[in-house]
Amino acid sequence: MCRWLAYIGEPIRPSTLVLDPQHSIVAMSLDARLGAETVNGDGFGLGWYADTAGTAPFVFRSVEPAWNDVNLREISHALRSPLFFAHVRAAAGPPIQQTNCHPFRHGTWLFMHNGALAGFPAYKRDLILEVDPALYPGIEGTTDTEVLFHLALTYGLAADPILAVGRAIRRVEAAGRAVGVPSPMQGTIAVSDGRTLWAFRYSSDGRSRTLFHSADIPTLRRMYPGAAQLSAFGDHAQVVVSEPLNDLPGAFVEVEESTVAVLDGSGYRHQPFLAA
Amino acid sequence: MCRWLAYIGEPIRPSTLVLDPQHSIVAMSLDARLGAETVNGDGFGLGWYADTAGTAPFVFRSVEPAWNDVNLREISHALRSPLFFAHVRAAAGPPIQQTNCHPFRHGTWLFMHNGALAGFPAYKRDLILEVDPALYPGIEGTTDTEVLFHLALTYGLAADPILAVGRAIRRVEAAGRAVGVPSPMQGTIAVSDGRTLWAFRYSSDGRSRTLFHSADIPTLRRMYPGAAQLSAFGDHAQVVVSEPLNDLPGAFVEVEESTVAVLDGSGYRHQPFLAA
Amino acid sequence: MCRWLAYIGEPIRPSTLVLDPQHSIVAMSLDARLGAETVNGDGFGLGWYADTAGTAPFVFRSVEPAWNDVNLREISHALRSPLFFAHVRAAAGPPIQQTNCHPFRHGTWLFMHNGALAGFPAYKRDLILEVDPALYPGIEGTTDTEVLFHLALTYGLAADPILAVGRAIRRVEAAGRAVGVPSPMQGTIAVSDGRTLWAFRYSSDGRSRTLFHSADIPTLRRMYPGAAQLSAFGDHAQVVVSEPLNDLPGAFVEVEESTVAVLDGSGYRHQPFLAA
Amino acid sequence: MCRWLAYIGEPIRPSTLVLDPQHSIVAMSLDARLGAETVNGDGFGLGWYADTAGTAPFVFRSVEPAWNDVNLREISHALRSPLFFAHVRAAAGPPIQQTNCHPFRHGTWLFMHNGALAGFPAYKRDLILEVDPALYPGIEGTTDTEVLFHLALTYGLAADPILAVGRAIRRVEAAGRAVGVPSPMQGTIAVSDGRTLWAFRYSSDGRSRTLFHSADIPTLRRMYPGAAQLSAFGDHAQVVVSEPLNDLPGAFVEVEESTVAVLDGSGYRHQPFLAA
Repeated sequence: MCRWLAYIGEPIRPSTLVLDPQHSIVAMSLDARLGAETVNGDGFGLGWYADTAGTAPFVFRSVEPAWNDVNLREISHALRSPLFFAHVRAAAGPPIQQTNCHPFRHGTWLFMHNGALAGFPAYKRDLILEVDPALYPGIEGTTDTEVLFHLALTYGLAADPILAVGRAIRRVEAAGRAVGVPSPMQGTIAVSDGRTLWAFRYSSDGRSRTLFHSADIPTLRRMYPGAAQLSAFGDHAQVVVSEPLNDLPGAFVEVEESTVAVLDGSGYRHQPFLAA
Repeated sequence: MCRWLAYIGEPIRPSTLVLDPQHSIVAMSLDARLGAETVNGDGFGLGWYADTAGTAPFVFRSVEPAWNDVNLREISHALRSPLFFAHVRAAAGPPIQQTNCHPFRHGTWLFMHNGALAGFPAYKRDLILEVDPALYPGIEGTTDTEVLFHLALTYGLAADPILAVGRAIRRVEAAGRAVGVPSPMQGTIAVSDGRTLWAFRYSSDGRSRTLFHSADIPTLRRMYPGAAQLSAFGDHAQVVVSEPLNDLPGAFVEVEESTVAVLDGSGYRHQPFLAA
Repeated sequence: MCRWLAYIGEPIRPSTLVLDPQHSIVAMSLDARLGAETVNGDGFGLGWYADTAGTAPFVFRSVEPAWNDVNLREISHALRSPLFFAHVRAAAGPPIQQTNCHPFRHGTWLFMHNGALAGFPAYKRDLILEVDPALYPGIEGTTDTEVLFHLALTYGLAADPILAVGRAIRRVEAAGRAVGVPSPMQGTIAVSDGRTLWAFRYSSDGRSRTLFHSADIPTLRRMYPGAAQLSAFGDHAQVVVSEPLNDLPGAFVEVEESTVAVLDGSGYRHQPFLAA
Repeated sequence: MCRWLAYIGEPIRPSTLVLDPQHSIVAMSLDARLGAETVNGDGFGLGWYADTAGTAPFVFRSVEPAWNDVNLREISHALRSPLFFAHVRAAAGPPIQQTNCHPFRHGTWLFMHNGALAGFPAYKRDLILEVDPALYPGIEGTTDTEVLFHLALTYGLAADPILAVGRAIRRVEAAGRAVGVPSPMQGTIAVSDGRTLWAFRYSSDGRSRTLFHSADIPTLRRMYPGAAQLSAFGDHAQVVVSEPLNDLPGAFVEVEESTVAVLDGSGYRHQPFLAA
């Protein structure tokens, strides 16, 4: 229902990925090629860390379509960040308001999602009751994603992110199936604590939204010596994104179904996630 | 934390009360004289019934300050209504978004509030659990007022509005006191089903926000023959409002503490409400 | 660059055309089939007359995409009007702001446009100088359309709308060609004084944006006895619109290139306009 | 009709001045003490330079009241800048839209204004004709201030800012008096090219809006050893602002009527400006 992008690597201006590429995330807001919807015009968000030392991130969110937001252009050019999230929204029901725009933040954590919890209104109350009462007042909007995030926080996101997100999804599946929804979970998720980036691709029915990660930059430089679009990136730059940002063969590699990718200074790793 | 106005009587353009008076509700958005805050610039709402036959009302809400919203000027001039609510907001915490603007609507009901539930985040979860699970998905925003409204709906607003609002307030007081808030309820409330208008003034500590009702129009005409500001109104026009709309002595009468006023075609009545 | 719709006939709720049809103007905001752009998400406007007695119209405009504006849904259901304009915008350059949303209003006149003045910034100053100095302060936004409207007002729109719009277009063509733009004018235009509706289709290069008018309702009723979508309309209902509102064969007829259509109580007429 | 603040000195987070002080510019948006209006809720703007090497500035502007804009809080905490402008608007007529929010930008220049050109609509056209036709298309909004800025650009702002602003003001006074406005110019103005900051206080009637500059920081440190609010600033920090940011005696010094202040790395200087 949305498109998102997450970057980790040498500090860059977010505009390098948010605005400049052939199929940038802002271009996807107007015309996504691989999405369930072609238009993602129901608001956007940019979340960024100033460093990777564990400080809290900043968030800029707006209900305007990303393609015509002049402030997004200014801010994504003005900043430099080693780790940032960008999201364009196609609302599936909850109102168009800043508090429903991704990414969501809690302490040093960012969380964003492309997809939906099918039949959510029918079991929202069940999930809300499961959220740690101490965390409950922190829910500011009305999306399924923010509830999923708070479930993961409840289940120990800080201690073991993969376990906590997995448990949150299993809880969603149980709640949905209890009210007759066969495939409650759909989507791709990005999570970060400001040091590491986790990207999940999982759906109850095994047919998730698309997700890609960028190939290793040094390898790409050897494949495409002199390619202008590579010059902006350092050797450790890595992107996870709903759709390839350009048409360069080999530049983007699909993240498989039922997989979690882990990205930090040491490179890209992945492992099965909630596989049957 | 806000200012509101409710009208019942012969159909009039809302602009007659929302924009035209010396101390109109829009003027109060910029400079309220009797309010806890002088500025009520955090959004506004207009809710109106097309008739008093029991049809569902319409709502126009915006996050902009009422004083500079050109659409509000257009719409409040274009409509005619026999029963409408207008509200200007001074946010006490919940975000500035349309879903947090009053009045709130459920079926044929409108509900708005000036005041606050003191310490709300600490017992919001307790109240949410009390809301009828069938009504729970209808909560679209994050204000204390919308939860109070859904409590009243849960307790039978349609069957007995005074009883249901009273019970909702008592439940809020119990929830607040359970977490150490001595005076949880503060405020004035307007409720309508499209035929009758109920206006409540009650606070746990007995010191509510101000509330006034307009004097009988035929009486005012005798007191002020030829007064221009009376010519727009029919003989059955009645207003309940946070502050007098003009400085005409006798035109507005205070609604007493711990009182509910009932207004319909047959005039103004009032009775004690939750009096100690 | 946009899509628009104009209605004249028995009073109806604008929602009947703006929201309800298969290819309503709101549906076109998200996915126009015949437009130069498929997305018209850069704001919208609704202009309506309360009657056809020559009173000034009302205007509701917003910078949000029409498809997710809840206020538009409320207002287009709440009103009844015998003559209204609806417009969804795909901005070609001027900023996304209410004062750049169509329709534009001056006294009892409404004016809206789908298309563009090619190369406008290069000759905007020339056109501005041509606008009657008494009218100049009334220009509130920065679109080419509003300047074109004020040129037509300058040239006597009230006295002879077809002559004035024609003269304004010729002036635009002269100004554009003076700075090397071969085909300055592109578009379809709707104009009304609250009694009559004029719809123009003309472009300097003879390849205008599409424009259609609805077939005669009594004829359509004979062709499609019992068609549900006709039941909302009176016998004198007429629509001019950028694209057909449904797929009913014969329901919409193309307005030819270089044509002006004139619609009032007595039916649909058309005549050549600025034909070579 | 507004309030503004300009900073030059060691790079700081804009929040240090925009949000944190007792009477911060955001606090002034809700309750200005010395202004013609107490509420400045009609939008705001933040303009900042990344360095003082002559690069173009960035601008973040919004139509929301500054006091409830969460993005302003994020961005003013996330950035560090050696030279920035902040402005809160109380609109005097022109619409509430981003293109009417200060500061205005042209190349490396920023420009903002508190005050008004009295009777502006009556001579706007005269001034517009005076603007260099090459600069004219750069006017994006409809404020008097943006026209004044473009007049100063026309008159050689880059070559001699004090002369160019003075000539622009004299031209405004001539235009206003030609249509019978005795005192056309009112206000305080801040201008920067990214290296130097010029602050003007001048009105045709000699009764300008208030303007203050901060005292020398090393001197203040000696006066108030251990004062917490000084610890955030370097020795070269300087502020020009519509009202003192705190109640510390001696911390803010009035800029006299008919004066221009010049601030750069070498300190604060001032000289008479358009004095009778």
